[in-house]
Amino acid sequence: MPEKFSLGRLFSPSTVAIVGASSNPFVGGHQFTRFFIDHGFQGKFYLVNPASSEILGLKVYPALTAIPESNVDYVISCIRADGVLSLLDDCCQKNVKLVHLFTARLKETGRDKETKLQAEILEKARRLGIRILGPNCMGVYYPKLGLSFNHELPRESGPVGGFFQSGGGAAEFVRYAALRGVRFSKVVSYGNASDIDEVELLDYFASDSETEIIASYIEGVKDGRKFVEALALAAKKKPVIILKAGRGRTGAKLALSHTASLAGSISVWKAALRQCGAIMVSNFEELIDQAVAFAFLPPITGKRVIVAGGGGGKSMVSADVWEEEGFELPDLSAEFRKKLKEKVPALWDWVRNPIDASLFQGTPMVDVNVLEWLSNEDGFDIWVANLTQDDPLPEDIWENILAPNFLNSVTEIKKKGKPAVCVIETGEIGPAEMESWKWRAIAETRRQIVNQGLAVFPSAERAAKAIEKLVNYWTWRESENELS
Amino acid sequence: MPEKFSLGRLFSPSTVAIVGASSNPFVGGHQFTRFFIDHGFQGKFYLVNPASSEILGLKVYPALTAIPESNVDYVISCIRADGVLSLLDDCCQKNVKLVHLFTARLKETGRDKETKLQAEILEKARRLGIRILGPNCMGVYYPKLGLSFNHELPRESGPVGGFFQSGGGAAEFVRYAALRGVRFSKVVSYGNASDIDEVELLDYFASDSETEIIASYIEGVKDGRKFVEALALAAKKKPVIILKAGRGRTGAKLALSHTASLAGSISVWKAALRQCGAIMVSNFEELIDQAVAFAFLPPITGKRVIVAGGGGGKSMVSADVWEEEGFELPDLSAEFRKKLKEKVPALWDWVRNPIDASLFQGTPMVDVNVLEWLSNEDGFDIWVANLTQDDPLPEDIWENILAPNFLNSVTEIKKKGKPAVCVIETGEIGPAEMESWKWRAIAETRRQIVNQGLAVFPSAERAAKAIEKLVNYWTWRESENELS
Repeated sequence: MPEKFSLGRLFSPSTVAIVGASSNPFVGGHQFTRFFIDHGFQGKFYLVNPASSEILGLKVYPALTAIPESNVDYVISCIRADGVLSLLDDCCQKNVKLVHLFTARLKETGRDKETKLQAEILEKARRLGIRILGPNCMGVYYPKLGLSFNHELPRESGPVGGFFQSGGGAAEFVRYAALRGVRFSKVVSYGNASDIDEVELLDYFASDSETEIIASYIEGVKDGRKFVEALALAAKKKPVIILKAGRGRTGAKLALSHTASLAGSISVWKAALRQCGAIMVSNFEELIDQAVAFAFLPPITGKRVIVAGGGGGKSMVSADVWEEEGFELPDLSAEFRKKLKEKVPALWDWVRNPIDASLFQGTPMVDVNVLEWLSNEDGFDIWVANLTQDDPLPEDIWENILAPNFLNSVTEIKKKGKPAVCVIETGEIGPAEMESWKWRAIAETRRQIVNQGLAVFPSAERAAKAIEKLVNYWTWRESENELS
Repeated sequence: MPEKFSLGRLFSPSTVAIVGASSNPFVGGHQFTRFFIDHGFQGKFYLVNPASSEILGLKVYPALTAIPESNVDYVISCIRADGVLSLLDDCCQKNVKLVHLFTARLKETGRDKETKLQAEILEKARRLGIRILGPNCMGVYYPKLGLSFNHELPRESGPVGGFFQSGGGAAEFVRYAALRGVRFSKVVSYGNASDIDEVELLDYFASDSETEIIASYIEGVKDGRKFVEALALAAKKKPVIILKAGRGRTGAKLALSHTASLAGSISVWKAALRQCGAIMVSNFEELIDQAVAFAFLPPITGKRVIVAGGGGGKSMVSADVWEEEGFELPDLSAEFRKKLKEKVPALWDWVRNPIDASLFQGTPMVDVNVLEWLSNEDGFDIWVANLTQDDPLPEDIWENILAPNFLNSVTEIKKKGKPAVCVIETGEIGPAEMESWKWRAIAETRRQIVNQGLAVFPSAERAAKAIEKLVNYWTWRESENELS
């Protein structure tokens, strides 16, 4: 009997071979080679292709068995499906523990022949003691090791782990969440889930000490009851965010042809997730927002929000949006009003939560950093700072006063242990805007705030939606702890 | 009796004076001066301030009456509220027709003295035959004339007109919608609406031949019945999009202190807007999306969508999102399938709507522009093209193949008279990404598509939400026409 390896061991190979490496930039065999070079894979990696001798300056071996190592831990198969069975024989000779089948066109085709071939591959792999990831997937992104499934993913690690049935979805999630400061323990794209499936992955991430937050994209599960059991255990340990795809009529049909998955009834999914304490989201933007919320905000169980920044219109719409998501905006403290009264007698009884910063124009309050005052307020659960971008102030004032004030004060709120949320719009800027000082300054300020580990959202609505789910999760966890 | 002028005449001044012009960059009197210089105001403009002789290189007059013109059409008042009554006397001497009171701290303070002063100003202005815009507002952006209320707003004109009770909201709307290609006839910020109010503005934009689509931000209305009457007439002529602010408890209180408005019951608002055929939105993003939809899409009355582009995950979530907004995704035509069968026998029965473009990798279909094929499809109401950004292809392939293919084919769909919608994500890019070829290339491609007059949305959800409201509007208009 071959030794049993945990997923943690399997995802930490010392030696990897890319079988079907290629110099054609359109195919996976080329792309994985580039990802390994770009990300500086920590172990050794070998390229295999009988038809090439060099790719991207690296030596290519004619067969897996020609590699001068007795053990290859991990094979990325980029060959056609009909070559996989014989590849498994070679894998056996090299003591391969995990084969990642980037190879596709198997069960997801819906055809008998391919479905049978997928079953045969699985059966043979099991017999040989080899685990299969996929087929039809992008495999593992594990930044600590330099394992990657796309170009230019972050090299640093972080607390978010994930398993994605869609490889493109996994890449989109990592790339866009990374811009918001999220970093990852590891992210696994698992496609058709012929062997390693959502239940095993969920169990793994639930117990993985490198992962504090679990994000996932699921089209269908093989065994609903097992999945719900695993989910109930996982959600009690850490937040589990699930983007369930294939919710409608069309999506259910697509799930079959994308990853050979049975989508299942969406009402059953909703009920099961609610009962388990998992967090359901509807699209990639929400998945990213939810990961940002959990990664950068502490466990919040209250819904009292204080909002500051931006003019009257932005403040009013913010208040509407937060309230519509179930938050409340209590009034400012008596102490705050007292300080305000000393500084601006004409305004003290007028300024409310949310604070319309434009009211302070032309008053002694322009010298005061309101956000800093607010950082001393108690009686709130969430501090929201809107960064307005429409002020017509010149570059030097932005650079020397506005941006540093904003950055320092939101950082100060965080340092005082208070949950700080920044709302900064993202415009569809073009090449011309990339050359303008204002758009560059906004981008620079946003990046500095992100780098301080602050939760940044592109709109009040997206912030409120994600934080509402975060509050519900931690409130549920609290009640679970009280019961147990 | 002084002559009566229409708003159209009032908003087209030949001579403007900025009273309270200033060299302090933090105050309106400076900012308006800059806006006029930057935007190249077509008429003459004069600066007035008894304490200055030169601002930004321009001569400053000690009083309005010192200006060497017998007529000044339009005055922008940036002075304190207590100077406005005597300013009106000077205005009368110069035959001023419209005073835009950027001046604030009047009724919105909620205080008796200021409320009384606002009433006195209005009464005196009426007596002198002078119309008042505001107080507490940013005034008029009229690109054709070079009138502006913020920096760097588009110089070209376009079909969207608007009236906004929030000046910051008006600027945010114009700036961000402009990045999506929207251009404006004129946009008016009207603040406390002491004289020129929402009803007069709505009537004006409804009959303004330069305006095809009306966008508005309203906190409260003075006369609900009159407003509903005006709205019912306007919505039959052109789309009227309303962002109603002050929907919740906090917002209602804020409306009083922001523009002295009574917010009114949100359920009454919803019912009234529905009955009139107006389009209600909840935040600035939705307002912008709705303007984009109406500006770049023809009157669509059906909900059959075809979606292409992106991998399986993006396709599935797109399908879910469009279906959840009430659209359907019918299957591809027999003709399309026949062409597909000729080119890729292995895929023809497998590819569905939405089309997972990643399936074509490594097949002869990579040489085919699928979107171009799709442009010949009939039986759909909306063509949606997802631009995926996660492909790991190198710069030359992106630049020479992918981007031009995408641009040409969506343009082609539009040329064939079919409504084309592009979904292109907007990442929170920072200064480093602005230097990377990939993010620049995405921005460049997006800008080219926008410049072709195509509707571009940052997510499937935002596209579906806005287009759902567009379809409902045109369906309602069609039924109204059948009835009448």
